[in-house]
Amino acid sequence: MFLRNTWYAAALDREVGEGLFARTVCNEPMVLFRTADGGVAAIEDRCCHRSLPLSLGKRIGDTIQCGYHGLQFDATGRCIKVPGQNSVPPGARVQSWPAVERHGFVWVWLGDETPDEAKIPDMHWNTAPGWAPMTDVLHVKAHHRLVTDNLLDLTHETYIHLQTIGNRAVAETPIKTKRDPGGVHVTRWMLGCEPPPMWKPLRPFVGAVDRWQLIHFTPPANVVIDVGMADAGTGAPDGDRSRGVQGRVINAVTPETETTSWYFWGFPRDFKIDDTQLTEKLRAQIVHTFNEDKAALEAQQASIDRNPAAHTIDINADAGILQSWRLVETMLEKQQPGLGPAAKPFAREI
Amino acid sequence: MFLRNTWYAAALDREVGEGLFARTVCNEPMVLFRTADGGVAAIEDRCCHRSLPLSLGKRIGDTIQCGYHGLQFDATGRCIKVPGQNSVPPGARVQSWPAVERHGFVWVWLGDETPDEAKIPDMHWNTAPGWAPMTDVLHVKAHHRLVTDNLLDLTHETYIHLQTIGNRAVAETPIKTKRDPGGVHVTRWMLGCEPPPMWKPLRPFVGAVDRWQLIHFTPPANVVIDVGMADAGTGAPDGDRSRGVQGRVINAVTPETETTSWYFWGFPRDFKIDDTQLTEKLRAQIVHTFNEDKAALEAQQASIDRNPAAHTIDINADAGILQSWRLVETMLEKQQPGLGPAAKPFAREI
Amino acid sequence: MFLRNTWYAAALDREVGEGLFARTVCNEPMVLFRTADGGVAAIEDRCCHRSLPLSLGKRIGDTIQCGYHGLQFDATGRCIKVPGQNSVPPGARVQSWPAVERHGFVWVWLGDETPDEAKIPDMHWNTAPGWAPMTDVLHVKAHHRLVTDNLLDLTHETYIHLQTIGNRAVAETPIKTKRDPGGVHVTRWMLGCEPPPMWKPLRPFVGAVDRWQLIHFTPPANVVIDVGMADAGTGAPDGDRSRGVQGRVINAVTPETETTSWYFWGFPRDFKIDDTQLTEKLRAQIVHTFNEDKAALEAQQASIDRNPAAHTIDINADAGILQSWRLVETMLEKQQPGLGPAAKPFAREI
Repeated sequence: MFLRNTWYAAALDREVGEGLFARTVCNEPMVLFRTADGGVAAIEDRCCHRSLPLSLGKRIGDTIQCGYHGLQFDATGRCIKVPGQNSVPPGARVQSWPAVERHGFVWVWLGDETPDEAKIPDMHWNTAPGWAPMTDVLHVKAHHRLVTDNLLDLTHETYIHLQTIGNRAVAETPIKTKRDPGGVHVTRWMLGCEPPPMWKPLRPFVGAVDRWQLIHFTPPANVVIDVGMADAGTGAPDGDRSRGVQGRVINAVTPETETTSWYFWGFPRDFKIDDTQLTEKLRAQIVHTFNEDKAALEAQQASIDRNPAAHTIDINADAGILQSWRLVETMLEKQQPGLGPAAKPFAREI
Repeated sequence: MFLRNTWYAAALDREVGEGLFARTVCNEPMVLFRTADGGVAAIEDRCCHRSLPLSLGKRIGDTIQCGYHGLQFDATGRCIKVPGQNSVPPGARVQSWPAVERHGFVWVWLGDETPDEAKIPDMHWNTAPGWAPMTDVLHVKAHHRLVTDNLLDLTHETYIHLQTIGNRAVAETPIKTKRDPGGVHVTRWMLGCEPPPMWKPLRPFVGAVDRWQLIHFTPPANVVIDVGMADAGTGAPDGDRSRGVQGRVINAVTPETETTSWYFWGFPRDFKIDDTQLTEKLRAQIVHTFNEDKAALEAQQASIDRNPAAHTIDINADAGILQSWRLVETMLEKQQPGLGPAAKPFAREI
Repeated sequence: MFLRNTWYAAALDREVGEGLFARTVCNEPMVLFRTADGGVAAIEDRCCHRSLPLSLGKRIGDTIQCGYHGLQFDATGRCIKVPGQNSVPPGARVQSWPAVERHGFVWVWLGDETPDEAKIPDMHWNTAPGWAPMTDVLHVKAHHRLVTDNLLDLTHETYIHLQTIGNRAVAETPIKTKRDPGGVHVTRWMLGCEPPPMWKPLRPFVGAVDRWQLIHFTPPANVVIDVGMADAGTGAPDGDRSRGVQGRVINAVTPETETTSWYFWGFPRDFKIDDTQLTEKLRAQIVHTFNEDKAALEAQQASIDRNPAAHTIDINADAGILQSWRLVETMLEKQQPGLGPAAKPFAREI
């Protein structure tokens, strides 16, 4: 079961243009296209006549003509023309979903409550003046919560990402966890540590650094991480980042199915923002890093699939993860009373 | 569930020769081979000893020797020899089916009623004097009724086949539908239309043409289409085809499984019948055309599989399709009383 | 269901070295590694924290560090370290299995009874002085009993392996079958036959040979075959093998899943034991031969999967196979009373 009354990232803004863009969100195949007014339409990717995906059809103005028998649908999903006959049969329509472009992503609302744009997660850095944007998307054959779990416990950087963002300090430094009304905060301050390979060249650090990872999770699967490091002992923990560099790792993980996900991410930064060469160098390193995660996540999902009821334990570093599960479970229980809590939510939904 | 007391095309005549030819029809794996008398044998493609497909064995005269332990079966499926012992155990036999070669195809009868060769669908043009034959077969990952639906509503030519046989007239011209005792007729006369690309060079047409598509469906999944066009206004609708060209699109769609089909087709024509270069040019264009159908049909089947209960509507052009469904449903109900009608038969069988 | 209180070959000895070796035995994913004392450890290939396969981790001495969050497990499966915290949570352990190296293979014990090394099947020729060893392993997409069935009725050599070890005599010569307390013997003496292609060059045979295949099956799926041939009429049936050559075909078939197997085999011989060129020539011929079996076995399994309830018969040559089924069925019934006998055991477990 998926949370319905919430926004999901469905596409990068640049993925939706003149053509017809197909993507499945929470098991709903949808076709997205940009309308003449610059907005984005998201309608069911299945003709209500003989079920051909509409994404195999053709744009005609702000409508889609089905590629099989030519039925034509507008941006609200209404059929407006059936070839060879004068009237459109009653019930000739497909589903449509509210779609909004924000922070470099296209967001869709699947639920029956009135969509509230104020609830789109705050990832404004990606389009804010003074910040260099960067976004991308990765397909991961793993439950979306396995991806957010990965982001809520960065301990794994020490074991998976030593070539880019991992150093020993991450695994060795305990986290602090805090709930707020709508989310979970996990913070880790690594004082006086070695800067990891990807960060080291970003600034002429004097030596050791104070490194921070300030994670904020909001349901269903959004994670914004304030990351950076400054020369050790120059006041970063008290708010003085003048001797450091910072960015935001923004992550919106969207269920494609119960066991596959679209992992949308961004890494806006507020330094050397016109250095496009640096942007592409960083992108390559992050893509490398996230592909390491993808390999682990897919192996993890396959292992869970082999034995969903297997015995597992939690460790201290899971505190934020467990909070995030509880938060989502409470919302799912509200959506469908009687559902009850699940010790291993990803296992329940499989 | 499949109709059993009926003929299914199992192979092109040229597919069955000296060797052992394996094909699955209605979930029955069979091995076909040509016997010394020129006939065709069709027996179960599974040794009754340890289940190895007999098609992996060896021809010995009019028998098959299993490739595992050497049991030998004749063309009726009877085991006639077991190596290393003098007698053949009782019950040592595999299934066999009546097989008849007709109209360029090999037909098999799966039911328990006595097979009646008179019920093989009339596709005689393919072997008639004065006609140039052409046959081929295509594997389609879609329910066989999706293929016949495609053939019973040619509206789609306008959207899928504009490069070969489609023109605007097809979608815009209403059809007429008629039941006869054993089948369904769908006719479409497109008067004064532009000849489509594949047809245009077949004759020095003066300008516009009168184009016809006279479709005849017979259960389980046979469709013969009388197609052609003549100079507009020269009397074709009244029977004078002297200023035109014609052919027959013959189609025998055979279920391999519930969701995959063997699509046997032919396109005999009665003009330039010795022009083998034209034959191959037409074949290439038809293969291109049917591969466009295959792509659509497989996308359609995948879409239905994702949500078999999805809401669908019918349009006017579906009149013939709906008649064909009713006809087959009635026969299925007769075969298995109590089955009841299905609104979407392909969905029921999935 | 698999027999549990028994030894299964899990790896060739040379497959287990410094690294982490993953293999699934009876649906249990395990990771094997060689410990400092030269022994072999076999523990669950799944971290008890977040389920990542431990085989994706890293050796640290005689422990495995998980590649995701760094938990460390010793050779008994006990977690001995959790990064970022001082204590290890209770219950932090994964399964481990007794593992013993013997006869060129690594054997594991899956059951809850105390493992008894005396029950490892006798395949000592493979490491005995005076014998040239040879081992290898093949993955087969077929139930493990289909593989032992293949080995208990060598009739198939005549039909599948004519290029190497098959001759007409095998299929034509009846077998003798005998039960002993722990296994089944199947013997076939082919007197005065032509030596098959692989054997012919192994010795300057005068002409015809007396060929023997003395098969011994022990549960769950071990088959040792005393094979060889001597100049015809020189007393081989009475024990004089001085005018012949001999080897042992040793086979330990291990279920990976219900329908896939690891087929471990060896072919130690007691002649020309230092001729490594001959060893590799023989290996190539046996690999060719067993790949012919693999093709047949996988086709057989696929055929059974299509119709597990299909009618089958037994023949005289199946006597040993039927005995082996009965033996294993009795042991399975003892392991799980009430299970009852199965006419086609491989079908029951699918």
